[in-house]
Amino acid sequence: MESVAIVGVGLIGGSFGLALRHHGFRGPIFGVSSPPAISAALEIGAISRAASLEDAVEEADLLYLAQPVDRIFSTIEGLSPLVARRVSRSPILITDAGSTKRLIVEQAERFLPPGVFLGGHPMAGKERSGVEVAEATLFRDRPYVLTVPDGFSNPFETAFRNWLSAFGVRLITLDPQAHDQVVAFTSHLPQLLSTTLAATLDSAGNPLYSELHGTGLLDMSRLALSSPALWESIVATNRGPILEALDAFAAELAVLRQSVLSDSLSTVFVRANTFSASLRK
Amino acid sequence: MESVAIVGVGLIGGSFGLALRHHGFRGPIFGVSSPPAISAALEIGAISRAASLEDAVEEADLLYLAQPVDRIFSTIEGLSPLVARRVSRSPILITDAGSTKRLIVEQAERFLPPGVFLGGHPMAGKERSGVEVAEATLFRDRPYVLTVPDGFSNPFETAFRNWLSAFGVRLITLDPQAHDQVVAFTSHLPQLLSTTLAATLDSAGNPLYSELHGTGLLDMSRLALSSPALWESIVATNRGPILEALDAFAAELAVLRQSVLSDSLSTVFVRANTFSASLRK
Repeated sequence: MESVAIVGVGLIGGSFGLALRHHGFRGPIFGVSSPPAISAALEIGAISRAASLEDAVEEADLLYLAQPVDRIFSTIEGLSPLVARRVSRSPILITDAGSTKRLIVEQAERFLPPGVFLGGHPMAGKERSGVEVAEATLFRDRPYVLTVPDGFSNPFETAFRNWLSAFGVRLITLDPQAHDQVVAFTSHLPQLLSTTLAATLDSAGNPLYSELHGTGLLDMSRLALSSPALWESIVATNRGPILEALDAFAAELAVLRQSVLSDSLSTVFVRANTFSASLRK
Repeated sequence: MESVAIVGVGLIGGSFGLALRHHGFRGPIFGVSSPPAISAALEIGAISRAASLEDAVEEADLLYLAQPVDRIFSTIEGLSPLVARRVSRSPILITDAGSTKRLIVEQAERFLPPGVFLGGHPMAGKERSGVEVAEATLFRDRPYVLTVPDGFSNPFETAFRNWLSAFGVRLITLDPQAHDQVVAFTSHLPQLLSTTLAATLDSAGNPLYSELHGTGLLDMSRLALSSPALWESIVATNRGPILEALDAFAAELAVLRQSVLSDSLSTVFVRANTFSASLRK
């Protein structure tokens, strides 16, 4: 794996480039992105030069798609003829960093030849987006899911995995459906609850609400700062599991409401204590 | 205000004692608490010596009730004869640090003479409790609510307010009902949502849930580590406003669920963005 192209040089794409450099990758890192993102990425050293998508597919051993989910869809479709040409000459590995996997993997199965695409999801992020907040250590100690098709074989897969290991990620291989079900509960549900909490307080329209609170509300509303556009595309590509998670939460909330009425909160609190502590082991 | 007694030397009571010392209070600080709390508090200098409640009422100018809400109730009742004796000799100021105010203030009106009790609520805390995690700076830049009865007059009130100002709190005077309504939305609702989220993930029983998550879930489940007993007494003394907050949230969640179905999340996300940013100004 001698050359890499990053398509979409934002927080995740920029952090991937920085992490490669930080861990000693010496080859060229092409950036395919908007002019402002390219110049910010060049400035911090996350990429070594700008490229068109066509040139990136021609020259890179690894193509890293780090756009929002909806953009990854259209990029994969657009890659179809370019990748067909490229693989007739030499192999290429394409992976993505999208937050949902089932529909992206299906899109790749439809538009890309076999043995080319590995779905990926680095479970790292910030409430701010953009290459300006990228960090070489963003992936360290965070889970990194790979979805690997049956019988997948690509000469750059091992090198790619080795770089991820060097970044300190916790690599987890999972099928796309299982991934999407898990993140609906562990990532999409927390996001939507934070958004709903902030919207509830906004609706109530009491100016004291933004004055009179502890640090708990700051924790619980941090995710509500996230980009609406980014989340619209995540939700649109994982609607079934997300509805399942929302309904599971609503059912648990109804149980809790009943416990408030009957002064019997300790059961739910003790279960919540235990689960929350298990996240921190 | 030459002497202070802290009843319940845990996180809040201990931090109050440390903050007094840190800002130059030279008088005795009596601690009325369990033997382990007393010895830990003596060790870190949050109190200068242990006392019985009887001696504390006899000797202190300020009595600071920093127990859990349900304990504050019984302490106030028990104080009744002691305070009657004390005020026949010299004035005393009693205040509390309970998380709800209406029922506590009503309890004080019932059992204490007028001009003695100011309700208080320092909006500071941690998910861990106990004097071991007390800090002199816990109250800095945090809201501190005082509920002041009409026509209240006490010779130690000004000194007490001046110490709070020295600690760097943002002093807010509010009537007990208004306080309880606001904290139901800004403190109790976030707590109960964090608990419900952790319980939802626990119920689902998928071991991947504690492996595969981003930092968002850690934020959103931190409050779920809080003490069940503490929260049972908070909820029991603020049930009406809490049910109102839970119902407002459930209604907003139903709207969000509909937006997930109809791919129209941007309105709720933009409102949530704005509110969440307003907390951080």
